[in-house]
Amino acid sequence: MDNRPIGVFDSGLGGLTAVRELKRVLPQENIIYFGDTGRVPYGGRSPSTILQYAKEDIAFLLSKDVKCVMAACGTVSSILPTSFTDTLPVPFIGVVEAAANAAANATCNRKIGVIGTAATIRSKSYEQHLKHRLPDCQIFARACPMFVPLVENGYLGKGNPITTAIAKEYLIDLSNAEVDTLILGCTHYPLIADIISEVIGSTVTLIDPGKETADAALQILKSQNLLAENNGSASYFVSDSVNSFRSISNRFLEEYAGGEVAQIDLTQAL
Amino acid sequence: MDNRPIGVFDSGLGGLTAVRELKRVLPQENIIYFGDTGRVPYGGRSPSTILQYAKEDIAFLLSKDVKCVMAACGTVSSILPTSFTDTLPVPFIGVVEAAANAAANATCNRKIGVIGTAATIRSKSYEQHLKHRLPDCQIFARACPMFVPLVENGYLGKGNPITTAIAKEYLIDLSNAEVDTLILGCTHYPLIADIISEVIGSTVTLIDPGKETADAALQILKSQNLLAENNGSASYFVSDSVNSFRSISNRFLEEYAGGEVAQIDLTQAL
Repeated sequence: MDNRPIGVFDSGLGGLTAVRELKRVLPQENIIYFGDTGRVPYGGRSPSTILQYAKEDIAFLLSKDVKCVMAACGTVSSILPTSFTDTLPVPFIGVVEAAANAAANATCNRKIGVIGTAATIRSKSYEQHLKHRLPDCQIFARACPMFVPLVENGYLGKGNPITTAIAKEYLIDLSNAEVDTLILGCTHYPLIADIISEVIGSTVTLIDPGKETADAALQILKSQNLLAENNGSASYFVSDSVNSFRSISNRFLEEYAGGEVAQIDLTQAL
Repeated sequence: MDNRPIGVFDSGLGGLTAVRELKRVLPQENIIYFGDTGRVPYGGRSPSTILQYAKEDIAFLLSKDVKCVMAACGTVSSILPTSFTDTLPVPFIGVVEAAANAAANATCNRKIGVIGTAATIRSKSYEQHLKHRLPDCQIFARACPMFVPLVENGYLGKGNPITTAIAKEYLIDLSNAEVDTLILGCTHYPLIADIISEVIGSTVTLIDPGKETADAALQILKSQNLLAENNGSASYFVSDSVNSFRSISNRFLEEYAGGEVAQIDLTQAL
């Protein structure tokens, strides 16, 4: 047993979808969340800058005495090398491996689609994990840089004409390739899963990395005897003002909304 | 005469539209440009975070011995208080005052529209300047948060269906209010001026703050005897990788493309 909190971080607030899933499968765990809202989004930045920001985010979580670190961010999970994560003093859980495993299990025709930010797709991290698990699979990847601003500006809901038009443009090649499984490789994308499903077809299995990563966390904590018996509290830290946190976070946390939130200055906190 | 360079900064690369205009009206001036590409965009962040970032950006320019500082960023120009800019050791030139003056001169029916980022519109900075110049004018303001991602992802060109649909949504109230002048209060917006003009009507005068600010810089430097006789070189600094700088900057600089570019770490440079 280990009653220390689980540390979760993301470039912004999209990673709260992973917190929601964690709370669902591990209700007795305490959670410390850091969202780098002062520097979001990471998806269009260079690998070296993303790496530097991720190291600072992780150092902050470690300063809070967490028992494991979860990168609830497709971009960060894609960029962070194992040569770095292997040196951390606690287990590291990224969304890429968990989602790739789930996709490998789900596919029948071995044609898998991957969508994510520009940095995630450029990194080819999903390809590497999928090829490792299923060497003969075919992977069709597409960056969807408009999806995050569309979600953040409320272009949601089945049939939304703007998001549907852009989704058609992004997904046409994956649809033509007849993928039977699609990894939603960015925390924001599950919020438009209904539109994505409508465009690509309801027979395609959508993989939500937040959900898969929460399941992976359960397995890792259990196998290493690190499960907690707490009251399941959550504390949130952000690098920009906390003012808009409540309204935005509710959208991601749904029935698990609530918890303290504070602004921190990363340059002073480390 | 003062041969020191003009310092220009922006949250990212949109401010290069102001550099292009500076080069047009002041071809003998050297320019130092800083684009905070590692933390772009500022438009959705809180006033306190924008203020902190802007102070760091300005400190970097001052470390390069510039003779004036131009905030080529509607968001920053809207947030920075005169209580701060008045304490700078060199003249400060923001886009808001220049654009508001131009709009006040252009309007006939005294109904003026303002569009910009969420932070710019929330600040009401254009309203304050316009009301000061034209106390009886009516101002209709609207945040257009999707315009920057649309421009950055290439949804450009007259008739683009996605950008046109979103522009109709954003501009309907301004159109119904019969504004005869519209301030494009964000450096990216001039790149979709054709779409904006088509949606709001060709009789509406569009004000490009980059162009107006370059004209204001000419007046200020002339009046304070600070004009230079240089070869008109430009040096660019960014806080993310320089890799994508050339292709993106060419879109903004047009015939004035070229010049050295380097990445700097703001936390170490100051």
